Amino acid sequence: MNEWKNNLRKIKPYVPGEQSREQDIVKLNANENPYPPSPKAIEAIKSYDAESLKKYPPSDAAQLKAAIAKHYGVGIENVFLGNGSDDVLALAFQAFFNSDKPIAYPDITYSFYPVWCEMFQIPCKTYPLDGDFRINPEDYREENGGVVIPNPNAPTSIGEGVDFIEKILEYNRDSVVIIDEAYADFGVQSAALFVDSDKYNNLLVTGTFSKSRSLAGMRIGFALGSAELISVLEAVKNSYNSYTVDSLSIAAGTASVEDEEYFGKVIDKIIKTRTRLTDELRTLGFTVADSSANFIFCTHGIFAAKDIFEYLKSKKVFVRYFSLPRIDNYLRITVGTDEEIDILLNEIKSYIKENS
Amino acid sequence: MNEWKNNLRKIKPYVPGEQSREQDIVKLNANENPYPPSPKAIEAIKSYDAESLKKYPPSDAAQLKAAIAKHYGVGIENVFLGNGSDDVLALAFQAFFNSDKPIAYPDITYSFYPVWCEMFQIPCKTYPLDGDFRINPEDYREENGGVVIPNPNAPTSIGEGVDFIEKILEYNRDSVVIIDEAYADFGVQSAALFVDSDKYNNLLVTGTFSKSRSLAGMRIGFALGSAELISVLEAVKNSYNSYTVDSLSIAAGTASVEDEEYFGKVIDKIIKTRTRLTDELRTLGFTVADSSANFIFCTHGIFAAKDIFEYLKSKKVFVRYFSLPRIDNYLRITVGTDEEIDILLNEIKSYIKENS
Repeated sequence: MNEWKNNLRKIKPYVPGEQSREQDIVKLNANENPYPPSPKAIEAIKSYDAESLKKYPPSDAAQLKAAIAKHYGVGIENVFLGNGSDDVLALAFQAFFNSDKPIAYPDITYSFYPVWCEMFQIPCKTYPLDGDFRINPEDYREENGGVVIPNPNAPTSIGEGVDFIEKILEYNRDSVVIIDEAYADFGVQSAALFVDSDKYNNLLVTGTFSKSRSLAGMRIGFALGSAELISVLEAVKNSYNSYTVDSLSIAAGTASVEDEEYFGKVIDKIIKTRTRLTDELRTLGFTVADSSANFIFCTHGIFAAKDIFEYLKSKKVFVRYFSLPRIDNYLRITVGTDEEIDILLNEIKSYIKENS
Repeated sequence: MNEWKNNLRKIKPYVPGEQSREQDIVKLNANENPYPPSPKAIEAIKSYDAESLKKYPPSDAAQLKAAIAKHYGVGIENVFLGNGSDDVLALAFQAFFNSDKPIAYPDITYSFYPVWCEMFQIPCKTYPLDGDFRINPEDYREENGGVVIPNPNAPTSIGEGVDFIEKILEYNRDSVVIIDEAYADFGVQSAALFVDSDKYNNLLVTGTFSKSRSLAGMRIGFALGSAELISVLEAVKNSYNSYTVDSLSIAAGTASVEDEEYFGKVIDKIIKTRTRLTDELRTLGFTVADSSANFIFCTHGIFAAKDIFEYLKSKKVFVRYFSLPRIDNYLRITVGTDEEIDILLNEIKSYIKENS
């Protein structure tokens, strides 16, 4: 009796970032977009024929795939969809990383990569970022079972150009290379331009509607790649769950992609606020990386990040602090609205005043 | 170069049932509910503050868990949520079936069980249904690494009572037992009554909002089990994708569960139509199993199932035919509205007339 307990999967659960339910907080800890989704996406939800939810969604979600394909200038056969980009990445790890050689990614990066390696028993090797928290492309010449590069990287916020990506691709003709572009819309050119080329049919670019498109609540992720990679990803998905993207997400996601004007406006606003936030923090004695994302990564010359984090929390301003090697004196701060950033900056000024 | 192709996951894709886009068909092939979701669920979508979709959903989806817990008379710690019950089952297979012994399930059953075994490399052994397509509980006394029993079974439509379930549980104190209740609301008592007992803390009951709750387009599945089983399932889920159920699904799902009156009415209507459909098909020379689901499983004394299937398809009436051992002379027909069933029966009568 109770022998079944021996067969339970032993796994240390990943703990998602703090998601406070409080209403009157300034929430700059989850890299959410401070602006609402496109009014056209909202209209698509409101006007959706909700009675038809009795039917399954189309399992190919062709409408949303076509909109994404058009936006990136690739074919519909180059697009894959999932329930958020975590779903897409988890499926891609299972689909492409079946080698005995370790997959390669930076030591400081998205915390889910090692979780998936553990979950799917994929060997992995991390390569340290340099002293400026940059990825050294030469590290990725070493033989590997796959490469995952986030661009921009998180939580460092640092983005790299197309030349850097092409180097990674040149060095890795024998591995699948995943470029995780969760934050790319805020400041780097997409590697999607390499997708349609016959040369790099081992490239998978992943993206999400949770950041630049303000649809974190809807769970929409996607991948772009050669028809061969996408078909393997589809086969793995169809061996798992055929209908991962629901009907309302397909409708709202399509309307969002088609509204290029609103998309551009929101990104411009966030970049403008990001520049101001960066400048003001530097004036206050912070070292701030040049961000290509919707968050900034900073450390103060005098005050400990953990103390600032705790102080801000007590003032109901939530930012992200990681108690991890190399970055335990840094803060990751989401670029909110100008009003939210004013509150943040005022609280930081108070902290400095109180402690000087 | 191209060595990466060796590391792609080789997998035979599962092919979902035919989902025609045509508008003027009678679609009785996907076991969808012919009635719309609860008006309260629709209202929950229409009145949802869509601007707040910029935020991530609460990863614990406590509101929906609480509603399901109340409906089944269990605690909130006994409830797990996923992106449809396929997601829940796929995670459960990974969480609980880590034994070298084969897991046990019927030879004729939901076609995804062997797909997940292949996907997650879980050994499995099937036990043949008897001549009346019933599951013999004595088969499940054999040592195993886990048990999966759908109740009612699909595509046979046959449900079993609480005594049967308790036998399975009694025989399997050393394995996790999954009772897949995708169709249970249409005619069997839920095994949820065993969930809160200390005795059967190895029981997981799974369910879906896609059938009885007319929300197939929303992708909501759930599981009920002991706090220990649920916590392992949560850990595996959180190592995969923290936010599987989106904000609108949480809102619509909660409203659906709270509308017990509408739920009861829809089920009554489907059971009434199912009885009529069964009776009329028997009059026309079919053998029809007594169904506990929202579909019926039948075979004709004279005419081949495949021929009837093809004929109906040519008349734009879609039912399900499986070209599989033992059941290749059977049809699975979803219980639609009375109007849809009238069209179906008339076409079958025409077929019999033309071929007699």
